[in-house]
Amino acid sequence: MATANVTIANPPKKDNSILRFAIPIIIGLIIYFLPPPTGVEVEAWHLLAVFVATIVGIIAKPLPMGAVAIIGILMSSFVLPGSNKEALGTALSGFGNGTIWLIVMAFFISRGFIKTRLGERIAYLFMAKLGKKTLGLSYGLIATDLVMSPAIPSNTARGGGIIYPVLRSIAGAYGSEPDDGTAGKIGSFLVKASFQGLVITSAMFLTAMAANPLAASLAADNAGVEITWGGWALAALVPGVISLLFVPWLLYKMNPPEIKETPEAAAIARKKLAEMGSVKPSEWMMLAVFVLLIVFWVFGKQLGGIDGTTAAVLGLALLLITRVLTWDDVLKERGAWDTLVWFAALVMMASQLNSLGLIPWFGDQMGTLVSGAGWVVAFLVLSLAYFYSHYLFASNTAHVSAMYAAFLVVAIAAGAPAMLTALVLAFFSNLFSSMTHYGTGPAPVFFGSGYVEMSDWWKSGFIISVVNIVIWVGIGGLWWKVLGLW
Amino acid sequence: MATANVTIANPPKKDNSILRFAIPIIIGLIIYFLPPPTGVEVEAWHLLAVFVATIVGIIAKPLPMGAVAIIGILMSSFVLPGSNKEALGTALSGFGNGTIWLIVMAFFISRGFIKTRLGERIAYLFMAKLGKKTLGLSYGLIATDLVMSPAIPSNTARGGGIIYPVLRSIAGAYGSEPDDGTAGKIGSFLVKASFQGLVITSAMFLTAMAANPLAASLAADNAGVEITWGGWALAALVPGVISLLFVPWLLYKMNPPEIKETPEAAAIARKKLAEMGSVKPSEWMMLAVFVLLIVFWVFGKQLGGIDGTTAAVLGLALLLITRVLTWDDVLKERGAWDTLVWFAALVMMASQLNSLGLIPWFGDQMGTLVSGAGWVVAFLVLSLAYFYSHYLFASNTAHVSAMYAAFLVVAIAAGAPAMLTALVLAFFSNLFSSMTHYGTGPAPVFFGSGYVEMSDWWKSGFIISVVNIVIWVGIGGLWWKVLGLW
Repeated sequence: MATANVTIANPPKKDNSILRFAIPIIIGLIIYFLPPPTGVEVEAWHLLAVFVATIVGIIAKPLPMGAVAIIGILMSSFVLPGSNKEALGTALSGFGNGTIWLIVMAFFISRGFIKTRLGERIAYLFMAKLGKKTLGLSYGLIATDLVMSPAIPSNTARGGGIIYPVLRSIAGAYGSEPDDGTAGKIGSFLVKASFQGLVITSAMFLTAMAANPLAASLAADNAGVEITWGGWALAALVPGVISLLFVPWLLYKMNPPEIKETPEAAAIARKKLAEMGSVKPSEWMMLAVFVLLIVFWVFGKQLGGIDGTTAAVLGLALLLITRVLTWDDVLKERGAWDTLVWFAALVMMASQLNSLGLIPWFGDQMGTLVSGAGWVVAFLVLSLAYFYSHYLFASNTAHVSAMYAAFLVVAIAAGAPAMLTALVLAFFSNLFSSMTHYGTGPAPVFFGSGYVEMSDWWKSGFIISVVNIVIWVGIGGLWWKVLGLW
Repeated sequence: MATANVTIANPPKKDNSILRFAIPIIIGLIIYFLPPPTGVEVEAWHLLAVFVATIVGIIAKPLPMGAVAIIGILMSSFVLPGSNKEALGTALSGFGNGTIWLIVMAFFISRGFIKTRLGERIAYLFMAKLGKKTLGLSYGLIATDLVMSPAIPSNTARGGGIIYPVLRSIAGAYGSEPDDGTAGKIGSFLVKASFQGLVITSAMFLTAMAANPLAASLAADNAGVEITWGGWALAALVPGVISLLFVPWLLYKMNPPEIKETPEAAAIARKKLAEMGSVKPSEWMMLAVFVLLIVFWVFGKQLGGIDGTTAAVLGLALLLITRVLTWDDVLKERGAWDTLVWFAALVMMASQLNSLGLIPWFGDQMGTLVSGAGWVVAFLVLSLAYFYSHYLFASNTAHVSAMYAAFLVVAIAAGAPAMLTALVLAFFSNLFSSMTHYGTGPAPVFFGSGYVEMSDWWKSGFIISVVNIVIWVGIGGLWWKVLGLW
């Protein structure tokens, strides 16, 4: 009977898996064998086929993203110009990209927050200060997230590794459990507020989410727009802070938690802090490296022109020398190696499509097409289409790599200011995660807690999406005008 | 008292650690502040300081090799030409090197031999055929090692992961234990023969040991000598096979095991094979990928000019698509990521030292110095010095990165044929591991078994070193003459 069960359980999964493999291959082959449009080189067209097949593969997911990226690198080595050895050399060139190593280094460094328990300590410090009321408690969790977001590029690690465990223990302490009708006491509000906070903090720093530097390098490659670490943070500062203050309050008003006063939470936090004892040398070192990183990322130009990636390498070296992290911690940091591989593949393809002339050609074509309409309309239609198409995506990276460059190029062709569009699409690449329970890494973690009903998650997610768009485009647009960015 | 113990136990270690940190830094600083010799650019000289400090760091080991490499990359970003951003770009360029990815891919693929248990099955197959006598048993273990060596670049994984566990269970089955006076029954012979076999198989293929491609790329960068996968294997074929046949027989004669007939071993092997059942689909797939790799590595040029690294990427992609390996297996393969980092740092420095003119300058200087002596004398003195200096090294990689390029350049300056010297030094980079119980990754594994006395290990190791030198330089030299390599 066990055999029969297996037989019954397997076929649908297998069929599905074959389809997942077939779709990217078929789409790639169709593009490959279509004649390239006039003005496009055959090599560029063939690389486009590989690129589209890779993106569709990342979305259809016959294999994890990194494995799809390996296949993409392999296929690129067959279609790029030159001998196979030369083409493979080009296909591997992404691995030497400085922006990629910025994020890989940040992954390594972020391990220190969890290993030294500095992240946990920061959470309890904010809780002890802000945690007397439920709304304050949510701000405390978000403040913890915000403080660490510049140096933890995995929002899944930040959310799942630091914020959620603390949140869960508080909700439990207040007798709010997911499945016995007590979710509404406090748990469901804290889950929604923390998750929406995470979506916003991810948008606030170049290094707060793994696909942010991907957006930045696509902007540099395709639109000649350089978004520095400091430039990103400054542009996001005003809309980010307003969103972080307004969104939890709105969630609180929309669906008030039953428990509104939480004096015990502050007491719990103080007790936890007492248990943790005084700050350990490893935590001080972690804090010092963190401050050093932020200083170099903000003032690198003034401080002898130190590059952001160099600062991150320096930060990791200091953590290794002081033994806050071991080399084995680095080798075990799978998220970093995973990011290295998919990021290198995507950046290489995007950069080659550009240097083989496909992106400039596409921009010219679109420019001719959209030259009639005013840029404001084109900009709004494109950016909203970019935002709401995230209902169809299960990953920020997949969405950014599939659509960011094309939407940016088209909007610029329609006359939209390049920096404005690059920033709005980059911020949207995070904010669009507010809507579903599968749209970004931490969403399944928070939704999976069971505190929030699906209908509530989607409804509040949609409302917050509108609020964020208004704040970031409206107030943000004014702020960037003041900064002279457009 | 516990506190007192800790206090007593710590200081020596701490002092030692400070010294380990201080030595590379001081040596680096001394070189950095010395005036560069006439004809050497300041930037090349400063990079030499970083390079020497990194090599000394890899030897002194204040931190694991990968961590030292990270610091080396950081320092390079401060001394290489251009802005910090440009210099860091150069410092990261090693990560896009095709040879490095050949070895990283081979690390991933080799996991399949262990995961599918194909390696174990091959060991039992050889044992069932050859295992009726003790000497035959040792040949069976060596044959297993040889068959897998082209696709398992970690000799530690090959020795510690596949050969040693099988060896240990046979010795145990024959009542030969390390510590009760029964080591001489069969265990001590099998340990010595397998270890020496491992040293020789490592020398036989470009992909049989992690530092082999490092030697090959140093030869390409510094002497313009291209050693292909097939070229390496062909050159090593005759001396390698002779060594593999002669060395176990010599060890057997020098110190005969008490048990000489082992009919039960063949029976055990057949029993194990029966237990394993028929070959699983995943093993067939692994075998197919392995054969495909060898075919492409040997006949890549004829098969549409497919590069060796491309073939390895293809092999990994096939294993991922057929789910023989999961993407998580790849991310967990720490040896691969470790190799990626140290290899990228060393290759980058060596290549930059060359392009900044230091290596050519060094060659010119040495050429003038040694122009009097005949090349045969210079070649022999240099290669023997290279070989026996391994008494001072605890890693093949450290030795290759410290000495290979310099010794090669000097020998060529003295008039030695470039390809001959490059090959001999490359083969020696493996064969010199025969001598000590710490000179290569698997040595501590086999020595640590306790079957072999230190004096026996060193004595037999020295004798085998002489035998290997005679076979590889003497018979090898004739073979390479026949091949027209010099």
